[in-house]
Amino acid sequence: MAESAPGPDGRPVPDGGAADGQIEGVLELDLDRTRRRGAPEAVLCDAKSVDQVASIAEEYARLAAAGWEDLGPVLFTRADPARAEAALAALPGAFHDADARLLAWPAEAPEPTGGLVIVACAGTSDLPVAREAELTARYLGRPTRLIADIGIAGLHRLLTRLPELREAACVVVAAGMDGALPTVVAGQISAPVVALPTSVGYGVAHGGVTAALTMLSACAPGIGVVNIDNGYGAGHLAAQIARWAPAGGE
Amino acid sequence: MAESAPGPDGRPVPDGGAADGQIEGVLELDLDRTRRRGAPEAVLCDAKSVDQVASIAEEYARLAAAGWEDLGPVLFTRADPARAEAALAALPGAFHDADARLLAWPAEAPEPTGGLVIVACAGTSDLPVAREAELTARYLGRPTRLIADIGIAGLHRLLTRLPELREAACVVVAAGMDGALPTVVAGQISAPVVALPTSVGYGVAHGGVTAALTMLSACAPGIGVVNIDNGYGAGHLAAQIARWAPAGGE
Amino acid sequence: MAESAPGPDGRPVPDGGAADGQIEGVLELDLDRTRRRGAPEAVLCDAKSVDQVASIAEEYARLAAAGWEDLGPVLFTRADPARAEAALAALPGAFHDADARLLAWPAEAPEPTGGLVIVACAGTSDLPVAREAELTARYLGRPTRLIADIGIAGLHRLLTRLPELREAACVVVAAGMDGALPTVVAGQISAPVVALPTSVGYGVAHGGVTAALTMLSACAPGIGVVNIDNGYGAGHLAAQIARWAPAGGE
Amino acid sequence: MAESAPGPDGRPVPDGGAADGQIEGVLELDLDRTRRRGAPEAVLCDAKSVDQVASIAEEYARLAAAGWEDLGPVLFTRADPARAEAALAALPGAFHDADARLLAWPAEAPEPTGGLVIVACAGTSDLPVAREAELTARYLGRPTRLIADIGIAGLHRLLTRLPELREAACVVVAAGMDGALPTVVAGQISAPVVALPTSVGYGVAHGGVTAALTMLSACAPGIGVVNIDNGYGAGHLAAQIARWAPAGGE
Amino acid sequence: MAESAPGPDGRPVPDGGAADGQIEGVLELDLDRTRRRGAPEAVLCDAKSVDQVASIAEEYARLAAAGWEDLGPVLFTRADPARAEAALAALPGAFHDADARLLAWPAEAPEPTGGLVIVACAGTSDLPVAREAELTARYLGRPTRLIADIGIAGLHRLLTRLPELREAACVVVAAGMDGALPTVVAGQISAPVVALPTSVGYGVAHGGVTAALTMLSACAPGIGVVNIDNGYGAGHLAAQIARWAPAGGE
Amino acid sequence: MAESAPGPDGRPVPDGGAADGQIEGVLELDLDRTRRRGAPEAVLCDAKSVDQVASIAEEYARLAAAGWEDLGPVLFTRADPARAEAALAALPGAFHDADARLLAWPAEAPEPTGGLVIVACAGTSDLPVAREAELTARYLGRPTRLIADIGIAGLHRLLTRLPELREAACVVVAAGMDGALPTVVAGQISAPVVALPTSVGYGVAHGGVTAALTMLSACAPGIGVVNIDNGYGAGHLAAQIARWAPAGGE
Amino acid sequence: MAESAPGPDGRPVPDGGAADGQIEGVLELDLDRTRRRGAPEAVLCDAKSVDQVASIAEEYARLAAAGWEDLGPVLFTRADPARAEAALAALPGAFHDADARLLAWPAEAPEPTGGLVIVACAGTSDLPVAREAELTARYLGRPTRLIADIGIAGLHRLLTRLPELREAACVVVAAGMDGALPTVVAGQISAPVVALPTSVGYGVAHGGVTAALTMLSACAPGIGVVNIDNGYGAGHLAAQIARWAPAGGE
Amino acid sequence: MAESAPGPDGRPVPDGGAADGQIEGVLELDLDRTRRRGAPEAVLCDAKSVDQVASIAEEYARLAAAGWEDLGPVLFTRADPARAEAALAALPGAFHDADARLLAWPAEAPEPTGGLVIVACAGTSDLPVAREAELTARYLGRPTRLIADIGIAGLHRLLTRLPELREAACVVVAAGMDGALPTVVAGQISAPVVALPTSVGYGVAHGGVTAALTMLSACAPGIGVVNIDNGYGAGHLAAQIARWAPAGGE
Repeated sequence: MAESAPGPDGRPVPDGGAADGQIEGVLELDLDRTRRRGAPEAVLCDAKSVDQVASIAEEYARLAAAGWEDLGPVLFTRADPARAEAALAALPGAFHDADARLLAWPAEAPEPTGGLVIVACAGTSDLPVAREAELTARYLGRPTRLIADIGIAGLHRLLTRLPELREAACVVVAAGMDGALPTVVAGQISAPVVALPTSVGYGVAHGGVTAALTMLSACAPGIGVVNIDNGYGAGHLAAQIARWAPAGGE
Repeated sequence: MAESAPGPDGRPVPDGGAADGQIEGVLELDLDRTRRRGAPEAVLCDAKSVDQVASIAEEYARLAAAGWEDLGPVLFTRADPARAEAALAALPGAFHDADARLLAWPAEAPEPTGGLVIVACAGTSDLPVAREAELTARYLGRPTRLIADIGIAGLHRLLTRLPELREAACVVVAAGMDGALPTVVAGQISAPVVALPTSVGYGVAHGGVTAALTMLSACAPGIGVVNIDNGYGAGHLAAQIARWAPAGGE
Repeated sequence: MAESAPGPDGRPVPDGGAADGQIEGVLELDLDRTRRRGAPEAVLCDAKSVDQVASIAEEYARLAAAGWEDLGPVLFTRADPARAEAALAALPGAFHDADARLLAWPAEAPEPTGGLVIVACAGTSDLPVAREAELTARYLGRPTRLIADIGIAGLHRLLTRLPELREAACVVVAAGMDGALPTVVAGQISAPVVALPTSVGYGVAHGGVTAALTMLSACAPGIGVVNIDNGYGAGHLAAQIARWAPAGGE
Repeated sequence: MAESAPGPDGRPVPDGGAADGQIEGVLELDLDRTRRRGAPEAVLCDAKSVDQVASIAEEYARLAAAGWEDLGPVLFTRADPARAEAALAALPGAFHDADARLLAWPAEAPEPTGGLVIVACAGTSDLPVAREAELTARYLGRPTRLIADIGIAGLHRLLTRLPELREAACVVVAAGMDGALPTVVAGQISAPVVALPTSVGYGVAHGGVTAALTMLSACAPGIGVVNIDNGYGAGHLAAQIARWAPAGGE
Repeated sequence: MAESAPGPDGRPVPDGGAADGQIEGVLELDLDRTRRRGAPEAVLCDAKSVDQVASIAEEYARLAAAGWEDLGPVLFTRADPARAEAALAALPGAFHDADARLLAWPAEAPEPTGGLVIVACAGTSDLPVAREAELTARYLGRPTRLIADIGIAGLHRLLTRLPELREAACVVVAAGMDGALPTVVAGQISAPVVALPTSVGYGVAHGGVTAALTMLSACAPGIGVVNIDNGYGAGHLAAQIARWAPAGGE
Repeated sequence: MAESAPGPDGRPVPDGGAADGQIEGVLELDLDRTRRRGAPEAVLCDAKSVDQVASIAEEYARLAAAGWEDLGPVLFTRADPARAEAALAALPGAFHDADARLLAWPAEAPEPTGGLVIVACAGTSDLPVAREAELTARYLGRPTRLIADIGIAGLHRLLTRLPELREAACVVVAAGMDGALPTVVAGQISAPVVALPTSVGYGVAHGGVTAALTMLSACAPGIGVVNIDNGYGAGHLAAQIARWAPAGGE
Repeated sequence: MAESAPGPDGRPVPDGGAADGQIEGVLELDLDRTRRRGAPEAVLCDAKSVDQVASIAEEYARLAAAGWEDLGPVLFTRADPARAEAALAALPGAFHDADARLLAWPAEAPEPTGGLVIVACAGTSDLPVAREAELTARYLGRPTRLIADIGIAGLHRLLTRLPELREAACVVVAAGMDGALPTVVAGQISAPVVALPTSVGYGVAHGGVTAALTMLSACAPGIGVVNIDNGYGAGHLAAQIARWAPAGGE
Repeated sequence: MAESAPGPDGRPVPDGGAADGQIEGVLELDLDRTRRRGAPEAVLCDAKSVDQVASIAEEYARLAAAGWEDLGPVLFTRADPARAEAALAALPGAFHDADARLLAWPAEAPEPTGGLVIVACAGTSDLPVAREAELTARYLGRPTRLIADIGIAGLHRLLTRLPELREAACVVVAAGMDGALPTVVAGQISAPVVALPTSVGYGVAHGGVTAALTMLSACAPGIGVVNIDNGYGAGHLAAQIARWAPAGGE
């Protein structure tokens, strides 16, 4: 390739004097998040370059080496294999679930407190997103459980699980296609439901949009909806909701 | 208002020689419909002027007086009070259900044959459309039954009705808001389900569009969807479906 | 108007033997709701006829007179003046907030338990929906507070309220137009946020759709979204969320 | 790749004691489906991993070896080559149509009963989806026939096929682009039409959405619409509809 | 009402010296249109105030009195009764078709030249828009004919009209709901088709949007689409298309 | 109407001790706006009740009487006659333009500074919104001019105005329907263009959405788009843009 | 891959006795098209498999060898390299334009008759679609000319071409992004304009949808719109329109 | 591949006599742009072939060699590596920023004049688009600065930057997902804000559409929106806006 001329602005190279958590001209870690919100920042990987993910992981490693406490657990979400590898290179002890595309560092989840978070999903294809939700709630400190494949096309699968669902302080319900499961579940229990639309489906399912609209239009109250495939957001919200509930489950 | 000058085209006044069923320059009744499709034409009133509805009703009255047989039962659908009155003026013996906005002439429904058509609806607000569907199937010759308010926010209402729903040769399920009921019903019975989205709801329910998309995306097979609030189309299709089934119900 | 002929089906008049809570062919009250979900059913008025609202209110009055306990508090939501009057005629002691279009019967809210629910709204125009949310949470048993007009066009109004917002166990944030307020609030507190899009705005605000999409796409976690203008649903969810939290506020 | 640390939850490995049809934490086959609905469950492959498809096929093989009867015919739909190969490895005698992306096990279709199902399609490009619909109806027990390329741009192709179309108890009509064929067919026959929009087309055809909306808006009654490219759903519904009709065709 | 203070800008009252066709600060008639485009400007009334329509009509009257030639025929389109009355007051000899909401001044259409324009419509409800198209083509100088109610739900109505349709140099086809008629017509004739979607229909017909999309996606070539309910635009385009064709029809 | 029982919360009546600009539980005027942003707050009337508009106007009157300076000019936008009357009752000297639905108080606009703002509109129907934009820029302190009816269907009208348009420091271009005018203008001048889509049009113009999308997709750079019919926002932005430009025009 | 069992239906292999133009179970060439519509059928390649394209090309070769006359010119549209190669293998003398993705057989275009068709495009990126339109009109027998890059961001490029554009009997205008060019052109000439939206653009250009909506909403009459990127349809329509016009150009 | 026959039109090869800036049949450079608009044309690469980009770069090189002055700085935008390489081959001294996908020729930016343009972005993923905006403003002659990662999920990051943001004559704010940042910024400063939606996000973020709608619906005035990911357009507009402002920053 032909040589490219130097840039127009004499932009100064960031020196080593950047503040902690700050990568000059790129990003600024929200290290105050735990104090302010009760949970540390998560790193959304899929819109970042591999190099950016590596830099962030290295900054966390550097901060830990420098003696910072309570940095984590830091979650890296939506990490494809290349980004996961970049993060693991800097933080080799991290936990990694390839299906859920999630890493957690440090790997040990906190001792669970608060009420049980159950993540239920309509079909097998919803599992990766459901697992992301479960792991997020787990690393934010709640006891969790995953119930798979209780879609409403065969209602008996749901009905036999109702006693179990009623143990939860919050239920995350993941569903694609028609997105009808959260309504049915919410109508049967007293705990809040976090509705998690997934992009499973085709045609007018529109990559999860129909499921999201269905959930917002639910004829049963007690449902809060998050973005399509946002397992992290669902798990985070569920962990907040279940925080004060009496311990139960597992 | 100032006087308007005569038209540009010397358009000939339709003479008395128009063919039967033809209102020159306006419409042409599809009198062949029963032979071809097994059911007579219906008159969709809400996009026609009151005068046009009156002309059509009068043409039917004229044809009947001229000795035509098997003209009906003719249905007038989506008739507001003014259009209903216009039709009744020409066809005074017609049946009229103001809630369903439907008239039928002659008023006597045929002797029921074929399988039972059940029309079930999710909520009280879906009743007018559900009743339109039921009456249509009834006037097309099927035994019918209406089951109200079995929405999935309270699943027990549906579960206790399952034995009854299983008697049907075809079930029309009307629902607005999340539109989730047809999936749940279809998953529990062996008869085909006609899904009838209604415009009940607000916000992202979008006047029935969300319900229609949900029904098309249903995770259970055995569902055919019709247009929003199209009770006539749902009842017509159900009557065709149940035509050959063994008698049952009522 | 011309006389209409009798119906085709000899539909039997419902006798007095209908089950409690059942209005034959019309609806079936979900009297089991409190046991199952911890809160009684609400009556969504705007898709029901005035007569239907009256019948429902009368059935509740009848059940109370017959000695049923724990029927309420029953909420009538989205009640315009005619429907509100119909309900009040049968349940004369009910509480009525005309702006919020809400009635509650009996009028006394339960003694508050659990954590504080704060309802914050972006602008003056969001007040009716915000008030519906607050009253719902109040009648479901939580202590509540309303904070008006803290939209992000003038950030100081929000910043001075942060200490107060941090007292809440759950914050409902109502906003129309750009719908950006819930993200900003969620980023500053540790309690869950229920995002309540309103139909305030014009042009591409699309009656609240843009606000709803913004809230679902929020860059801060900890937000559950409900349908546009669904103050009832937001208050219901908030009351469930705050149920186990330690008492605070007011 | 760097080593990943162990998981946070000591999740127990599913033991051999799982119930029949249950793959712990993954899915639960709906083995009750035939009894309840008259047709066995189908496996939608494209949203499942190759491993999951293999596991399901192996579970069916295991159940058959264990003496279960009436398991099938099980259909595997939307199977790309890799998923088809995985299923065939476990169920080597299965029938496979690569164009229709469908497998059926066991390979022998039931002896046809009920009325004839005709699947007609508008253009050559609609053939894979049309064939999926035909095979589904065939494996659900109906006599079937496929009529290709009768799009309305050349009406004579349709008109010469009308006598044949009138033999059917149900006609599935697959069309993309303008999606106008189902209306034209429904207007000429007395049997119900299942309208099957396909993703064929470009520009404002929007991957089948325009065809789906056209079909829902059809000016002829007697049409039930399924999701875009949902050949399985169309064939399933057609088989249900034609179940009671007198034998005909072929 | 309280008195309003004077404006901020001392905006000068337009004096009598405005150019011909110019109404200062309001509009500027495109009097060059006939020379440039072969047809005079039309006045779209529904987005103008009654006063503005009156001013425009008066300006035309003034110009005519001042000796301008070849001003017309000027069309006033989408004129409700109040706007029609305002125009007729200034131009009392104008032609007015209240159904088509169209006025033409002067009232005499030009002597027809060029090929025949046929306007065909699918249903009775499409008549007002179809008539607007026909009158526009007529006043732009073509021989015209209107064929009503040949919707494809009863194909025989269309087939018997084919010889007549083949006489046209251009066919405008107006249809709402599924919008399928233009494709069927275009497939049978050699003349260009102007597809005119109408807002007739309900539910997912979306006020004509579905019809417009169907027409753009038509599987037959030879179709140009105009905006929903744009009878004027359709007639204008048809008149241009038929301009050079040999005389025929009528 | 039956009597309504007292509320549940003993909500305290706001005492007279509220802070300046604060109407307890309703709103809080952003009196800091001029210092922070260079222009005072505007009151969007159409989403507020008549009483709320009256209260706000009264609060401004009270503040002025109490000796506050630099309160204005306060704009009341989108004021229908009832809301305008309410504002004028409290602020009788205010300027009111009924077409633009705008009030300004005090009535005298500031002495113009900065560059000329020209507001150009495509058609007569865009005038009210264009005038709202012009008045806003005028009251924010710029010299302004309005050019009407230069739509691109007759390009000569635009071309003859180009020298004038080139005098402006910022041009607001209002257009509905196809929304193409801003692109054409921006391509001919060096000043920034504020594109103001209007809701003028029908069919697929979609109430201004098509115009907005066209403007965002413009093939010429130098265009910033505001919401549909947002004359206030366009004028505000234009006044900010023209602030530093050398004086010109008028 | 494991072996697949035989099919369920003993589907007969199509014998050599299929009618001319019929490929049994796949398609049926519309050999009557030239007689009926004045132009032969075109083969839309992108939704057909390479094998299907090959079969069709071979059938045309077979028919020609069997002595059929007037088969063409047959156009193969939207042919990628693989499909183009398949067609050329069977019809080696065909014309092929790789940019326009179009083949024509036989290669010689007819002697031009009728009026001039000009295809104008807004930008360089619209050239492939514009060229498809031009070639289609050329092979349908019209004299044609292509004018590139006259987008409205630099109006002088268009203005200098106006005399040339006024020679045309029909102008096809291709444009993506804002799609504003057809309106500007139509406003300046007396010939009909075929508006051809292209998928050029990004963001809210939405792959051509915005351009299509803009064109349908055009404020100038005399425009007929075709589907996005439908160069074939635009050229076909233009050829029909220009058929009767006096010869001109080239 | 089989040989393709010669074309139908004997299209003349463009001779060497084309005007400066004209590539016959392909494009026509807008060399008048700087005189007319104050900034030269930019070359949008992603919708052009590599050969077309090369031809354009070569034409600029030829013009420069021929002695043209003031050709630049010419920007090549949205250039992938292949297109960048093609441009650099002809213009080897050009500046190239691979992340921003932008080239500038000649490489030296003009001496900055006018007010400071600050480009601020919400998150790390918005950086490439933000950098494109900054470089564009820089090459159009303004002093510029980039502020990264001040998203509203952690408000302190924004608040600490406010003094800096207040130095700017124009602030470009790039944000994806909820797109809420421009409103917050605009509410705090007196300079105009150019809102630049980015395609960062997933689910209902809809590739930037939600952000664009949010920005158009902003509750704070002073915001002009450009197309999604249109960094070039944002920078161009900002440079125009800041042109007359007093120098500041850097």
